[in-house]
Amino acid sequence: MQRNSLNNNNTTTNNSNGGKNNGSGPQRRGVVRRTKQQRNSVFRHDAFGQTGHVRYKKKNVNCESLTYVADESDVWRAHEAMEHYMHRGDFWNAGKHFMIGTYSRIALTGIFQACVAYATNITSNHFIDFKFKSVGRLLEEKAVVRAFLQFYFYQLVFAAMAGICVWIQPISGGSGIPEVKCYLNGIDLPTVLDIKTLFCKVIGVTASVSAGLPVGKEGPMVHSGAVVANLISSGNVKNDRQKRDMVSCGAAAGVCTAFSAPIGGILFALEEGASYWSPSLTWRTFFCSMTALATLYSLNSIGSAFGKVGFNKLFSFGNFEFGHDGSSYAMYEMIAFVLIGAIGGLIGAIFNNANEVITHWRMTNINKSKQRRFMEVLFVSSAMSVVMFFLPLAYTKCTPIPTDNRSEEQMDMWEKVVPFLCEPGTEYNELASLIFTDPGDSIRLLFHLHKHAFSTASLLLFFFFYITLAVVTYGIAVPSGLFVPSLLSGAAFGRLVGNLAHKIYPNLAYSNTYALIGAAAVLGGMARMTISLTVILLECTGNEQFALPLMLTLMTARITGSLFNEDLYHIHIHMKKGVEFLEAELRSVTRQHNLVAGQIMGANVIFLRPVEKVGIIYDILKSSKHSNYPVVDTDDKNILFGTIGRNALCVLLQKRAFGYPADASTIGQNTPSIMANYLQIGERRYFPLIQWEILEKSYPKYPSVFDLRVTEQDRDQWVDLRPYANTAAVSVQETSSVHRTYSLFRSLGLRFLPVVNKYNQVVGTITRSDLTADALAQTMLEKGKRHIDEVERNS
Amino acid sequence: MQRNSLNNNNTTTNNSNGGKNNGSGPQRRGVVRRTKQQRNSVFRHDAFGQTGHVRYKKKNVNCESLTYVADESDVWRAHEAMEHYMHRGDFWNAGKHFMIGTYSRIALTGIFQACVAYATNITSNHFIDFKFKSVGRLLEEKAVVRAFLQFYFYQLVFAAMAGICVWIQPISGGSGIPEVKCYLNGIDLPTVLDIKTLFCKVIGVTASVSAGLPVGKEGPMVHSGAVVANLISSGNVKNDRQKRDMVSCGAAAGVCTAFSAPIGGILFALEEGASYWSPSLTWRTFFCSMTALATLYSLNSIGSAFGKVGFNKLFSFGNFEFGHDGSSYAMYEMIAFVLIGAIGGLIGAIFNNANEVITHWRMTNINKSKQRRFMEVLFVSSAMSVVMFFLPLAYTKCTPIPTDNRSEEQMDMWEKVVPFLCEPGTEYNELASLIFTDPGDSIRLLFHLHKHAFSTASLLLFFFFYITLAVVTYGIAVPSGLFVPSLLSGAAFGRLVGNLAHKIYPNLAYSNTYALIGAAAVLGGMARMTISLTVILLECTGNEQFALPLMLTLMTARITGSLFNEDLYHIHIHMKKGVEFLEAELRSVTRQHNLVAGQIMGANVIFLRPVEKVGIIYDILKSSKHSNYPVVDTDDKNILFGTIGRNALCVLLQKRAFGYPADASTIGQNTPSIMANYLQIGERRYFPLIQWEILEKSYPKYPSVFDLRVTEQDRDQWVDLRPYANTAAVSVQETSSVHRTYSLFRSLGLRFLPVVNKYNQVVGTITRSDLTADALAQTMLEKGKRHIDEVERNS
Repeated sequence: MQRNSLNNNNTTTNNSNGGKNNGSGPQRRGVVRRTKQQRNSVFRHDAFGQTGHVRYKKKNVNCESLTYVADESDVWRAHEAMEHYMHRGDFWNAGKHFMIGTYSRIALTGIFQACVAYATNITSNHFIDFKFKSVGRLLEEKAVVRAFLQFYFYQLVFAAMAGICVWIQPISGGSGIPEVKCYLNGIDLPTVLDIKTLFCKVIGVTASVSAGLPVGKEGPMVHSGAVVANLISSGNVKNDRQKRDMVSCGAAAGVCTAFSAPIGGILFALEEGASYWSPSLTWRTFFCSMTALATLYSLNSIGSAFGKVGFNKLFSFGNFEFGHDGSSYAMYEMIAFVLIGAIGGLIGAIFNNANEVITHWRMTNINKSKQRRFMEVLFVSSAMSVVMFFLPLAYTKCTPIPTDNRSEEQMDMWEKVVPFLCEPGTEYNELASLIFTDPGDSIRLLFHLHKHAFSTASLLLFFFFYITLAVVTYGIAVPSGLFVPSLLSGAAFGRLVGNLAHKIYPNLAYSNTYALIGAAAVLGGMARMTISLTVILLECTGNEQFALPLMLTLMTARITGSLFNEDLYHIHIHMKKGVEFLEAELRSVTRQHNLVAGQIMGANVIFLRPVEKVGIIYDILKSSKHSNYPVVDTDDKNILFGTIGRNALCVLLQKRAFGYPADASTIGQNTPSIMANYLQIGERRYFPLIQWEILEKSYPKYPSVFDLRVTEQDRDQWVDLRPYANTAAVSVQETSSVHRTYSLFRSLGLRFLPVVNKYNQVVGTITRSDLTADALAQTMLEKGKRHIDEVERNS
Repeated sequence: MQRNSLNNNNTTTNNSNGGKNNGSGPQRRGVVRRTKQQRNSVFRHDAFGQTGHVRYKKKNVNCESLTYVADESDVWRAHEAMEHYMHRGDFWNAGKHFMIGTYSRIALTGIFQACVAYATNITSNHFIDFKFKSVGRLLEEKAVVRAFLQFYFYQLVFAAMAGICVWIQPISGGSGIPEVKCYLNGIDLPTVLDIKTLFCKVIGVTASVSAGLPVGKEGPMVHSGAVVANLISSGNVKNDRQKRDMVSCGAAAGVCTAFSAPIGGILFALEEGASYWSPSLTWRTFFCSMTALATLYSLNSIGSAFGKVGFNKLFSFGNFEFGHDGSSYAMYEMIAFVLIGAIGGLIGAIFNNANEVITHWRMTNINKSKQRRFMEVLFVSSAMSVVMFFLPLAYTKCTPIPTDNRSEEQMDMWEKVVPFLCEPGTEYNELASLIFTDPGDSIRLLFHLHKHAFSTASLLLFFFFYITLAVVTYGIAVPSGLFVPSLLSGAAFGRLVGNLAHKIYPNLAYSNTYALIGAAAVLGGMARMTISLTVILLECTGNEQFALPLMLTLMTARITGSLFNEDLYHIHIHMKKGVEFLEAELRSVTRQHNLVAGQIMGANVIFLRPVEKVGIIYDILKSSKHSNYPVVDTDDKNILFGTIGRNALCVLLQKRAFGYPADASTIGQNTPSIMANYLQIGERRYFPLIQWEILEKSYPKYPSVFDLRVTEQDRDQWVDLRPYANTAAVSVQETSSVHRTYSLFRSLGLRFLPVVNKYNQVVGTITRSDLTADALAQTMLEKGKRHIDEVERNS
């Protein structure tokens, strides 16, 4: 033992602070690990249910990490074996049962989400139609003032509706994509997946789109898909991994129904969610996307002859027309596309930066109270109405509708243009046609009308005002997507460039190609997603010819934008304090500075022994907030025995899985003998006191330690943690580089990683909060400081 | 120490077999770990360069696993820090240099692969045109016998050319996709990525396609892309991970150029290669695909007016025409598509099974000699010529070409039909039109000609004979892809179903939709890829409308086919003995049988000490074939100090990085002191004898142990392995479940995983071969046997 004490100084340094330890347990280090976590915990029980409020007011969200690795305890193994042997030989074994259950839930998710998307679409289209028609009638009568007042009133009412939804459920504001990204990254924001959020989000986005705000319904649809998946599976998922898989499916269905882009949806879910490409998850998202698409098509084919799908009713960029050579661009125009991509990236960067500044201002000035937030919505809506109405009034340009040489498709397009104060049927107002229509229609007008349909001046005016309003709008208390505003302003910008280019080289591609490229550039500069965005845009375009220009533009836009700042979703994620988002890759600076796991870990380890006193467990659970605790075998060189989760401990205490050992004299000397009511068969223990099913049944609502009642008598009894401890916990050597630790943590989807020294003794723990960019920067700074101190001391 | 000896019985059991150990080192366990590996090693040096031959004859391929994790040794860390500090403040720092180098190599890969694909296309099209034109002229003169002889002769010459290519480089036979899949899975088959393979593959596939065999050039293009990437980067990649990333890019470019499907290419590379979704790899494959596509488009736009891309010259399914309602199917037709998918899956399963049986027969009867393999090629070519020529002769059906109501696109189509013995210009022979054209054109004819263009009888005849020949052909000694034959026979099958369905319900979708669905079904039933195949087909189709039918069909085909057997690529991979392919997911049976790492590991650990004698290292390297060795600190409780690779050891011996310790008396007692020429600064050693650059420079051609000269005097000297050992090696507890071990192994891309007990003492090692399905089944069987023995003993 003399040798051991030399090596074990990491874990046995005494720092007795636990007055409640009764002296019977081994001494522990400081129970409180990090004050930030404690601060979070204050909000946990106070502000639950109004966290969205907390989010904006305090910039602090109380959230938990998820874990995607099963705890391999003895009870779990017994459960797995039992499940298998019980149904062995049956045709309907456990695996098939699970499979059918999962896939039917996935199908339900797809169907339900498609219905939600369809209803949202139909309703908002109806509202928008109604609004513009009644205003249009008044305009035809040249009653401009009355028209404006009616327009203003309608928009204000819808905006107020949207504002009220967010008032009721604050987290339903905004795009929803940051929240889904966080969830798929392993951060469980409270109330994000509640039914209340779903209702507020869906009704809210219908209203905010109807209110004519520069918002899209695509982001909210992704969020809605995630919630639908969670609600449908809520009674059946047994762990975080299954839940995450379902939410991935839901997000895929959301993207699929928003853009009718099934493959884009799958890729979005995989890109955001899966740190590990698992074929089964791919198939699930595939199936969910497919079901959603089929439902959407079916709903769209209702009433059509022979059930033909009305593709024109879905979100799409419409059919592009080509010249007789069948090509919509020439190879040398790629240079122009790269240029547009670069400028689009710049526009995106400015957009993101401006929105960041505004959001910061908003967080300190507006978000203090719900009233102010609501007033802001009304104010923005008013400003929007004024600008939208007076812009076409100020720049009244009546352009004649061409009468010759029009295909059937073009005919449909020309029906969408708005006369405003011009002669209906023969003339249209350029600006009004972009403003007084559904944003999806405006995008299609910009994509498909012939090259002289929009003058440079009206495009410039529209682009400038619309994007400014979009910057201001994102972040107010309404559900608001970012895709459509980016696409719309981008399309105007692209067409503008196309117009200018045409003046110089009349031989160039159609304006529609330029409009598409511009839309992609601005969206790419703002959102900067990788492959999923390309596929989504390609699926919306519906034509493979645009693959190369879109890829080129999106790549350029992303590279250009990334020189200046992050994408808008990440900016908003980082603004939520307490949300520890793990990027897919670590910056190489940690490698260059030679950071190892031992330097970033939290060194105050709170541990339990394999057989532990109830009182100690209870006190530790109460005084610390960790989700996992290492189990250290103090009778065997302090090595890591395993890990155990807070939830399991709470259930054990609640179910009173404790007692006095059969032979009390063995305690303390060596591992205590087996509990009285605990059967041991062969080398495997098959009947522990609490079975896996019972531990699992509590998911996801485990008892809280504050609800437990532990009497003084209970405190002296013992719990055998060995059957419940995860004895195969993944651990990391203290000498491992941070890079490796990070990839281990992220690719396995861990929540907690014990750090061990070379004798497998726990010297620290790594959680999500140790691996964020901020935490790592902090550690590097401290390392540098220590180095300076050392040099000073030496000199 | 008394306590230690109790716990260390796993590692200190004496089994001295090393007569050369000189008694000075610690005793080791049996040096040879598993005989199979040794058997492989015999071929290593004998059959290198003719492994393809070995492959078919002995069913045994000698291959190495790749590792994707950097060895984090002290020299590596010093190197990383130095790289960083040397260029700190420079604008062109190491990271940027590396980035630019990598991306320019990726761009070169794309450009070069596009040129290869373009050249292959142009050449084979030219040859096919030449062949059919000269035969066509003779047929017009009604000189049937002369026509046949000429036809037969041309086809035989081309087939012989293809056969000769495979004679020269046996591994260039077949599709190439199994080989690329293996490589991306981490299995380095010899000569797969050599320049000789590239030449033989590309020339061979041009010849085999020109020979009219039922083969495609798509699989070989993927292989070619992988080789091109490897060749371009060969001087610059420093480790397996970088090489794999380059090969992934190449494979993406290959798919992209073969199908003009850039997104499909990216997804193929990611799905096959990346066990871990890394954004940087996504961007690289994206960039490579994009470059390849741009090059391909540029090459195709040569000579066209204003550089417009000739999309019709690329591989695609052509533009589908729709009715005036803009939809090509009704929702209730989904039922028919599911049915076609199920039948297609069945056809695919039969195809795979038949090909497996034939390949087994071929391996025992044909593949014994190169002569036989060559003769087989000539025989198959002859059979093909006879069938292809006499089929349209036997069933001569002259159908008139419609003259009215034709769009420009349809006009182009009708120009492709073949009159054979009918009246040129006004009539065409249905079967001959499918047979006497380029397979790509045949597919387009089946997709686009009006619904009465092909009679049921000719479709049935064509389908039956073509698919039978395709089954026989795949596996003969020519480069041969599987996509086009599957698509072509599938299209015939789909059109057949469409014809029949039309007779019953005349209101149904166009035949072209059915042909497309049939093609997808048969291909899906054979290849069973997940999302990448959907995207490839969608990109070839070029129309988003078909997303839902394609998804539905591919999913059904996959599910149906998987009830019977594996996909053809996996069947062929599993036929190569010694190739240890790790599937993405482990079967759940290992979990149900409660297998843990300690049960599947190789228990004979050959280890080195941190400071080791040259003689021992040399003997171990010579007597064992392992790629990695654990370094065990015998002076410190036998704990795992780290791991070291065979390659590093060989370089150390070659560079003579050994000497006598400064103080000889310390050896054995405790870790020997630092070598004379080894500087230690602070806590970090900055100047080890051999720097990382030198270790790295040898990649990938490390010195072999058999090339090393170690004198008797050298043998007594010592090597300090500590600076070179990976002290942060990922290890796994012996109690970890196999599931977790597998996911760790696969998601981190390991080659070697030490298994430790709870004291961090090495008790075994896990390599790729322990984790294959076969090895696991074997372990489970043994476990069961042991259990029976135990029960018998007890009773």
